Amino acid sequence: MIRRLCIFGVGLIGGSLALALRRGGHCREVVGCSRSEQHLARAVERGVIDSYSLDAVEAVRDADMVLLAVPLGAMGPVCTSIRDALPVDAVLTDVGSAKASVVHAVSAAFGVAPSGFVPGHPIAGTEQSGVDAAFPELFQDRRVILTPLETTRKDALDKVRAMWQAAGAVVEEMSVTHHDEVLAATSHLPHLLAFGLVDSLARMGESEEIFRYAAGGFRDFTRIASSDPVMWRDICLANSEAILEVMKHYREDLDGITEAVKHGDGDLLLEIFRRAKAARDRFCH
Amino acid sequence: MIRRLCIFGVGLIGGSLALALRRGGHCREVVGCSRSEQHLARAVERGVIDSYSLDAVEAVRDADMVLLAVPLGAMGPVCTSIRDALPVDAVLTDVGSAKASVVHAVSAAFGVAPSGFVPGHPIAGTEQSGVDAAFPELFQDRRVILTPLETTRKDALDKVRAMWQAAGAVVEEMSVTHHDEVLAATSHLPHLLAFGLVDSLARMGESEEIFRYAAGGFRDFTRIASSDPVMWRDICLANSEAILEVMKHYREDLDGITEAVKHGDGDLLLEIFRRAKAARDRFCH
Repeated sequence: MIRRLCIFGVGLIGGSLALALRRGGHCREVVGCSRSEQHLARAVERGVIDSYSLDAVEAVRDADMVLLAVPLGAMGPVCTSIRDALPVDAVLTDVGSAKASVVHAVSAAFGVAPSGFVPGHPIAGTEQSGVDAAFPELFQDRRVILTPLETTRKDALDKVRAMWQAAGAVVEEMSVTHHDEVLAATSHLPHLLAFGLVDSLARMGESEEIFRYAAGGFRDFTRIASSDPVMWRDICLANSEAILEVMKHYREDLDGITEAVKHGDGDLLLEIFRRAKAARDRFCH
Repeated sequence: MIRRLCIFGVGLIGGSLALALRRGGHCREVVGCSRSEQHLARAVERGVIDSYSLDAVEAVRDADMVLLAVPLGAMGPVCTSIRDALPVDAVLTDVGSAKASVVHAVSAAFGVAPSGFVPGHPIAGTEQSGVDAAFPELFQDRRVILTPLETTRKDALDKVRAMWQAAGAVVEEMSVTHHDEVLAATSHLPHLLAFGLVDSLARMGESEEIFRYAAGGFRDFTRIASSDPVMWRDICLANSEAILEVMKHYREDLDGITEAVKHGDGDLLLEIFRRAKAARDRFCH
């Protein structure tokens, strides 16, 4: 049972976790903190949080669990603001989509990463954002990856694991580096490709007409291009190394496909498409 | 009212059209033809067609409407097989995803495109294929693009338009070339990108693990990579020129995004992502 959960950034992720924990009776009190009083007031109105403060120091007071659910670029500033106020025994965790950058930001802000710090990342979300998009089932049966540091206390890790399990998630652990590589491949690269495609088409002549004839496949393919631009800018900046590495492989493969189209190599195209279909049918059933 | 509809290729598209027309009483009789007796027997069993023939000449006998719903690569061979048997007044139409290649194949098979030939393309489908995936509502409120030739008879165009409208579709007309450019951008390129991404990841080390952490966004993004490989090989070969042109633009834009990631140009990334989100939210609501 969490006594007092303090959430920085009460949006889709932070809000959904609060709703899940409150509904299950796993949390006595939730305090929200962000820069927008309007959003925080809305979160109270929706029953997502009990109260809020615009002052980070006041928000973390007496908290036993502090959740950083702000865009990656805001992790450092938030940590700096709570550096001297975070209760000694409080567990600190985050939901950032790239872990090395959060570890760096937290370590820089606190001088050294607090032993109660447990980096985390729920593999869940929609293209929606904001507290109005939050719903308590968001994490049901979804994976949450924790990337504990050597300095992380076991009791802190246990508490964060229990919190996500209480929200219905399946919790796993891996290293910070490995997490960032895997997510670059399965999430960050696809988002870049989708943003890039929509922007590419939008800037073509007659783009209105082009989009008019887009079918269901295009809608699905580009759904992630409706994601929050600030969040994704931050992810690209925070995980650039792993993203560039996987982009390099992808571009080489795309070169191969382009050459096959150019030279009418139907056998190669069929081989690639069959392998891709088999992989997707196998993993995304 | 269609008296006798002959469908070559009774799969998702051909089967769904037959179901829609039969349900609405717009068609007296449907005859199927394909190379697989098993699939045709299944189509009869599902009530999609009344009867079938494995012999193309027999299948088109007395037909007043002939629908080519086979992969693009099979359009030519099918037309050659019915060249001398197609009733003089019969309307001939197709559902191919690239129009220039079908026009070429039909013209080559018949010597000159028959005046009853109306090239068409329903912008509808799912990643499923085959007659078991067919359902009568597939074309409801979907667009069907007809690309009539200068030689096309008006009464043939009217009949094909009426047929698709009877199936619930919104029918529009454009030129063959324009159709192929628009579809290269909104459909063919996205399919190539999705097939390419899944194949790229599948061939990486630890691909099982990579796919394991794929979230909903990845599933949506790659849904089209579960499409029929033969159909998509044929589309790539049939519309290579337009695909290569739009791929060239996309790759230039992807270069720009990659450079922005490399140089940490957050302002440019934010500009691109915002423009893409605005375009998608506007067109794909």
